[in-house]
Amino acid sequence: MNRHAAALSLALLISSGASGHTLLAQDFLDAYRAPATRLIAESQSSDFGWNRLAELTDTFGPRITGSTNLERAIAWAAAEMKKDGLEVRTETVMVPHWVRGHEQLDMIAPAEQPMAVLGLGGSVGTSESGPGSPGSPGSIEARVLVVSSFDDLTAKAADAKGRIVLFNVPYTNYGRTVAYRTGGASAAAKAGAVAALVRAVGPTGLRTPHTGIMEYADGVARIPTAAIPAEDADRLQRLQDRGVETVLRLRMDATSLPLAESANLIGEIRGRERPEEIVLVGCHFDSWDVGTGASDDAVGCIVTWEALRLISKLGLEPRRTIRLVLWTSEENGIHGGAAYAKAHAAEAAQHVLALESDSGVFEPASIGLSGSDAARAVMTRVMSLLAPLGLEKLGPGGGGADIGPIAAAGGVPTMSYNGDSAKYFTIHHSPADTIDRIAKVEVSKAAAAIAVIAFVTADMPERLPR
Amino acid sequence: MNRHAAALSLALLISSGASGHTLLAQDFLDAYRAPATRLIAESQSSDFGWNRLAELTDTFGPRITGSTNLERAIAWAAAEMKKDGLEVRTETVMVPHWVRGHEQLDMIAPAEQPMAVLGLGGSVGTSESGPGSPGSPGSIEARVLVVSSFDDLTAKAADAKGRIVLFNVPYTNYGRTVAYRTGGASAAAKAGAVAALVRAVGPTGLRTPHTGIMEYADGVARIPTAAIPAEDADRLQRLQDRGVETVLRLRMDATSLPLAESANLIGEIRGRERPEEIVLVGCHFDSWDVGTGASDDAVGCIVTWEALRLISKLGLEPRRTIRLVLWTSEENGIHGGAAYAKAHAAEAAQHVLALESDSGVFEPASIGLSGSDAARAVMTRVMSLLAPLGLEKLGPGGGGADIGPIAAAGGVPTMSYNGDSAKYFTIHHSPADTIDRIAKVEVSKAAAAIAVIAFVTADMPERLPR
Repeated sequence: MNRHAAALSLALLISSGASGHTLLAQDFLDAYRAPATRLIAESQSSDFGWNRLAELTDTFGPRITGSTNLERAIAWAAAEMKKDGLEVRTETVMVPHWVRGHEQLDMIAPAEQPMAVLGLGGSVGTSESGPGSPGSPGSIEARVLVVSSFDDLTAKAADAKGRIVLFNVPYTNYGRTVAYRTGGASAAAKAGAVAALVRAVGPTGLRTPHTGIMEYADGVARIPTAAIPAEDADRLQRLQDRGVETVLRLRMDATSLPLAESANLIGEIRGRERPEEIVLVGCHFDSWDVGTGASDDAVGCIVTWEALRLISKLGLEPRRTIRLVLWTSEENGIHGGAAYAKAHAAEAAQHVLALESDSGVFEPASIGLSGSDAARAVMTRVMSLLAPLGLEKLGPGGGGADIGPIAAAGGVPTMSYNGDSAKYFTIHHSPADTIDRIAKVEVSKAAAAIAVIAFVTADMPERLPR
Repeated sequence: MNRHAAALSLALLISSGASGHTLLAQDFLDAYRAPATRLIAESQSSDFGWNRLAELTDTFGPRITGSTNLERAIAWAAAEMKKDGLEVRTETVMVPHWVRGHEQLDMIAPAEQPMAVLGLGGSVGTSESGPGSPGSPGSIEARVLVVSSFDDLTAKAADAKGRIVLFNVPYTNYGRTVAYRTGGASAAAKAGAVAALVRAVGPTGLRTPHTGIMEYADGVARIPTAAIPAEDADRLQRLQDRGVETVLRLRMDATSLPLAESANLIGEIRGRERPEEIVLVGCHFDSWDVGTGASDDAVGCIVTWEALRLISKLGLEPRRTIRLVLWTSEENGIHGGAAYAKAHAAEAAQHVLALESDSGVFEPASIGLSGSDAARAVMTRVMSLLAPLGLEKLGPGGGGADIGPIAAAGGVPTMSYNGDSAKYFTIHHSPADTIDRIAKVEVSKAAAAIAVIAFVTADMPERLPR
């Protein structure tokens, strides 16, 4: 940053009423140029992060709450963190225990054919919801009604009774289309449907279904619900448009068991001067039960974890505490994030910054901040250290599901590391969420960026302004 | 073509010893410019072909031999061909009747996880091949041995006994890697393996397995065999490289039933002057039992069929017979093509040209010819009529599995319409072989090109030289 730009930044800080005058000193960043360079170089010197991601996802596979895989992975990560020199502890969280079981969707008419299907998390099974189909106990066989929206379902409500309703809503972005995944079952049940299918929430893949959490509305019959690939949704749409009677048979053995015990896993580098002030970084360690949850969100855990490993390995001793949390049970309802906020309510205001990585590390990646103008002005300066990574531009929005509760409680500025969303949502919650799509260089880049942000924010003389 | 080029072409024909002097006349092609223009315009005037492809694949789904889907689709196509004004008949062919049944592959160690799997056509089931696994009757549970080639299996033969052997051979091209799909099971069985897995033959997709025919060697134990996606193969490789004991459990209910009756479906435009001379175009109408066999090979049937429909619709009456054949049972052993050659042995030499479309219509597409220099010289001229389609370049090789037997019997020049092979093999024999990936404009283009080639070759004054 040249003198003119620094003066401009100073003016912005004053006009936005920031305190933290030390952060405006000309030499503020200079003290961090060498550590940032070292962190970046160390991250790029090996594929340690990617290799750890491979070991994690290869060895433990998907990590749905309630599974042995998740609890074994937590125990492994705790042991590995200790090897990295972190202070490690766990905090118990009770989590949902939904088990998918066998699933099968068959087209019965106009042709006989097995179809791709993936039940939605939390759905009841087909044997819980009615008498089943003649000759196929435990399954539901019914004609299909394809609708294009909740409004279209309302318009066609007279035809929905006894049917399997398909919400065929083409993917535009996650926020707009996920409402059909979460709310489709109850909307269909209100209209008398016996099951609800939803066009998978994601770009068209290779006959790729995407799972994810769903919610039943109170007082409405609970009917089974599942995602089908875009290709199958379009096929059923074309058949309906041609007036062809289409019958499907759905079998889902899904069941919800009593709550299980899991844990948030915490690894820390304790601050040398102000240990009570916390720079929080993290991810969620649970995943859906398909694929290996590599991008959602093992890689987020690896790159935030790598940040602490790199800082520790270089012997950097930050003024404040840097805390890594691998939250449990994000997918099934953000129980880990909520439990953390509850357990740490007394120190919520001591959280200086919270950064989450839960959008993959796909190129082009970016970093966002949600916070005051004062926080943005300082963080914009810190981010200039990321120029060697091409990540120096601070985006407008940053946050994460798991850091949300503690940030809300403490008024904490939040940041996020965001991979390219089209690539992320192509494999999100699908069997294709595996390490194969994750580039080694992107893991190193994300780790280096988070390491620099975390270290500088934890070490700079004055606390990041609210 | 300008006068200079025409003269050059003439010289080439003479030097290559072609007969067919009428085909060298300056006005030979001129008579076909108007029909070619009309055929191209008619093909591009609607999406008739793509819509018929959608109706076929939506309504009947996949069409494996022995299935009701295939026989219903043949009956539908025969009725549709009659509507198009073609002379229609069927010729009975006895075909294999392999039924996939339920399939499941689970990782047991180091993590518990269902894995993607797709049994190979002709494989035995897991209950046919041994006593099964304790607690899981009808399944095979064993440690995995990953090998990189047949030679590597030989080198590791001492470790193969009682194992599930995985051939992890990265896809380069179909010809090089398909040998592991066809021959992997018997090679593994010779080494004492209890089952054989093969890395799917195709580019890495989205956890996409690819099925296809396999063959058991005589005198070798028949063990179950299936394909797994590239991602899973790489994961098992990494686990082995790390020394992690990996156990899989495979269940396949596959079974082979007695031969079933199917048929080659023939639609013709009878020649006005030399009906005994045949220009043959076609495809195979059967498919694997996953996806809807849209590119392999419903679209090949549609575009060759469209060629006859367009010619018929425009009232063009070729000198020779144009014969469309939708062959049955290509996937399961080219039984339709063999039966056709046998039934038509007496008229094999009367086949002027045979053209097959069985490589999709993905852009960029090309057309190839296998035949004499004399045939190539004439066909190069005919192909110039395809300049408006960008398809005027005649490639070096052309042929097809189904036209192979009759071409061999009759010494017939063969042509093929070839879609981009990377796109084709990405979805080939997989659940993702659906219409969604096929562009309307590419269907029209292929249909127009084949229509022009077929009509000109059937109508030109002299027969295409051998």
